[in-house]
Amino acid sequence: MGVLIGPKGYENEPPRHPELKINAKEPFNAEPSPPALVESYITPVEMFYKRNHGPIPILTDPDSYRLEITGLAPMTQSLSLDEIRSLTKHNIVATLQCAGNRRTAMSEKRKVKGVGWGMAALGNAVWGGARLSDVLALAGIPSCTISTASGGKHVEFISVDQCPEEKGGPYRASIPLVQATNPQADVLLAYEMNGQELNRDHGYPLRVIVPGVIGARSVKWISSIDISAIECQGFFQQRDYKMFPPWVDWDNIVWPSRRPLMDFPVQSAICTPSEGSVVKDGSMVKISGYALSGGGRGIERVDVSVDGGQSWTEATRVQNGVSTSSNSLYISDIDENREKWAWVLWELNAKLTPPATIVAKAVDSSANVQPRTVEEVWNLRGVLNNSWHEVHVRSESLVDAFATTLRSNI
Amino acid sequence: MGVLIGPKGYENEPPRHPELKINAKEPFNAEPSPPALVESYITPVEMFYKRNHGPIPILTDPDSYRLEITGLAPMTQSLSLDEIRSLTKHNIVATLQCAGNRRTAMSEKRKVKGVGWGMAALGNAVWGGARLSDVLALAGIPSCTISTASGGKHVEFISVDQCPEEKGGPYRASIPLVQATNPQADVLLAYEMNGQELNRDHGYPLRVIVPGVIGARSVKWISSIDISAIECQGFFQQRDYKMFPPWVDWDNIVWPSRRPLMDFPVQSAICTPSEGSVVKDGSMVKISGYALSGGGRGIERVDVSVDGGQSWTEATRVQNGVSTSSNSLYISDIDENREKWAWVLWELNAKLTPPATIVAKAVDSSANVQPRTVEEVWNLRGVLNNSWHEVHVRSESLVDAFATTLRSNI
Repeated sequence: MGVLIGPKGYENEPPRHPELKINAKEPFNAEPSPPALVESYITPVEMFYKRNHGPIPILTDPDSYRLEITGLAPMTQSLSLDEIRSLTKHNIVATLQCAGNRRTAMSEKRKVKGVGWGMAALGNAVWGGARLSDVLALAGIPSCTISTASGGKHVEFISVDQCPEEKGGPYRASIPLVQATNPQADVLLAYEMNGQELNRDHGYPLRVIVPGVIGARSVKWISSIDISAIECQGFFQQRDYKMFPPWVDWDNIVWPSRRPLMDFPVQSAICTPSEGSVVKDGSMVKISGYALSGGGRGIERVDVSVDGGQSWTEATRVQNGVSTSSNSLYISDIDENREKWAWVLWELNAKLTPPATIVAKAVDSSANVQPRTVEEVWNLRGVLNNSWHEVHVRSESLVDAFATTLRSNI
Repeated sequence: MGVLIGPKGYENEPPRHPELKINAKEPFNAEPSPPALVESYITPVEMFYKRNHGPIPILTDPDSYRLEITGLAPMTQSLSLDEIRSLTKHNIVATLQCAGNRRTAMSEKRKVKGVGWGMAALGNAVWGGARLSDVLALAGIPSCTISTASGGKHVEFISVDQCPEEKGGPYRASIPLVQATNPQADVLLAYEMNGQELNRDHGYPLRVIVPGVIGARSVKWISSIDISAIECQGFFQQRDYKMFPPWVDWDNIVWPSRRPLMDFPVQSAICTPSEGSVVKDGSMVKISGYALSGGGRGIERVDVSVDGGQSWTEATRVQNGVSTSSNSLYISDIDENREKWAWVLWELNAKLTPPATIVAKAVDSSANVQPRTVEEVWNLRGVLNNSWHEVHVRSESLVDAFATTLRSNI
């Protein structure tokens, strides 16, 4: 056993921010409130969603930690943290999004299995670390390699956390070698988050960041990297995080019939006002939210409607906070093309006439659009709900009327 | 003037297949019938859609032809056809799709401007040629370059065809340098199509193939390549081939407010049966069509409904024709990952109860889906109509009844 240990119990969990909404306690899964989420372009570490499959691992001796690189590479490697830190450091702004983001809304239509995420199972951070392509070069694999001489085509990341027994032990996932070795894909072995050392909840001492891809492939607490001929055969790559058609249910599912999810589709959601808010008739309200797309596809525009989708107005991009933030520690050396992997925060000031339905939908740089209804993309695991997002606001007078009725009935 | 000449008149047009549907005669724009389109995985050259902005250029002396590489490159180059042919030859299966494919269906909802394309403004071919990244290496630009030392970030392809005066002379377009120099992006300077020398209609002697991107960037009859600090400022990159929201019309359009289209979104269409076909009640009918997505995103599945979208069945992929074709000339050395840039042909045998509405929609590997209605993506230039495709079939008895009514009224 190495010095990075996945405990069996939950006695040594790190402290968490009290304002997080806890969706599951053990393993710990939590997200911020939607209004808190869009308060800043860079999500503070403590407000970043936490997604775990077991107790948080513990590094007992940083000096003895080694990342092992094994398998179908010309050379094996065993790298210390210092050796990884000595490689060129890259700072990438990337949004991580759980494939289950907005699952609860999908479950409301027809029940799905999984952690009941709201719409804040995502966050945008500055990730600092070595490029995976630079690390793999140390194992003799040059950039933009499709296959090694010995037939390696996939890069598997192996963690130390203790997932439930039936899910096959430590968490692992793989990505294609050609993506792992492409410097432009910006896959990182990150040891920093927002300019601070990675904390335990987010993968200390070392985690993978695969920008533009569902969060499940950005493995935390990695202990080894295996170069393999086939993609990861683990539970989370083969029997989870796949998207099935709406007509497939638990009695007729055939897991091998679908490919593991990688890039996520175009997505957006309204974070303020909140669902069910009370609004004064005719008042101007600031509507705000996020939009993002996978695979490095940027956001072309976000359309917002305040009449349930009859008419639309383009939202304004909020100047991102990186250049204007007071925290200049991690800002000076962010890599170019930073919009590529990051969300867009947007807002629109609009006059509301409640009761009203606010709707948002985004278009990405490849002209992909969000599906209108959740039924179109419903799937038994509740992944990738990117249907048009709606928020319903109520009239003040209606609330008053209701209160009056209540009082008169008491 | 070089030896590759764009004539002003239409006296020297090449012969074309008589079965093509002509959407515009001068310049010549034509497409095959939908049933003919899906007869083969590889579209025969003569049935491949023709998209032109002027008369077809003429190469007067192949031996004197030179491709000039100019601009912000470490070295300029002047390459003969033999020099380009002497580089490693790559064979790529790629589908080219006009951004205006399915425009007519968009125009039926609300009038748009442009050539009235049906649903066959696309084709799948084996393109043979040199990788653009290898050619740019001859100008001193290594693979995966974001910017040259002198600030070159875009690669502009300049043709010799004579576009109408108001459209700014010879056709040109650019792509980012990082894409042009990425070997995995498979951008080709092609001199062969389906194993034969490129013909005049398709760009003889040399054309660009930018896989996964709207056809407008795959410039034909190129005479030079310019490495530039900014993207192409030509008409077709700056004042055309952009996607505006539905509420923008010719009286309020601001061209610079949108980026040029590159990758196309997920798309599919039904090619058989044809719209308005007569079908016997309860008969089994083979429904067939195509599906594709841009940017190298493959097709995850195609859903087909025969009851107007109430229930769905997954279509079957038709074994692609490359491995089974009798024409082995160009098959032996096709590059790996050939599905990446190519369409999927699909079919489904279904019992039809006319009158019935058949609907098809595809999901790509990034889980993007097609929009349900054309209204959602309507735009004044009629580009990228990828809404759910519908075909309506009629009952034989209804046709009979109509005929009887007609006869009795005569």
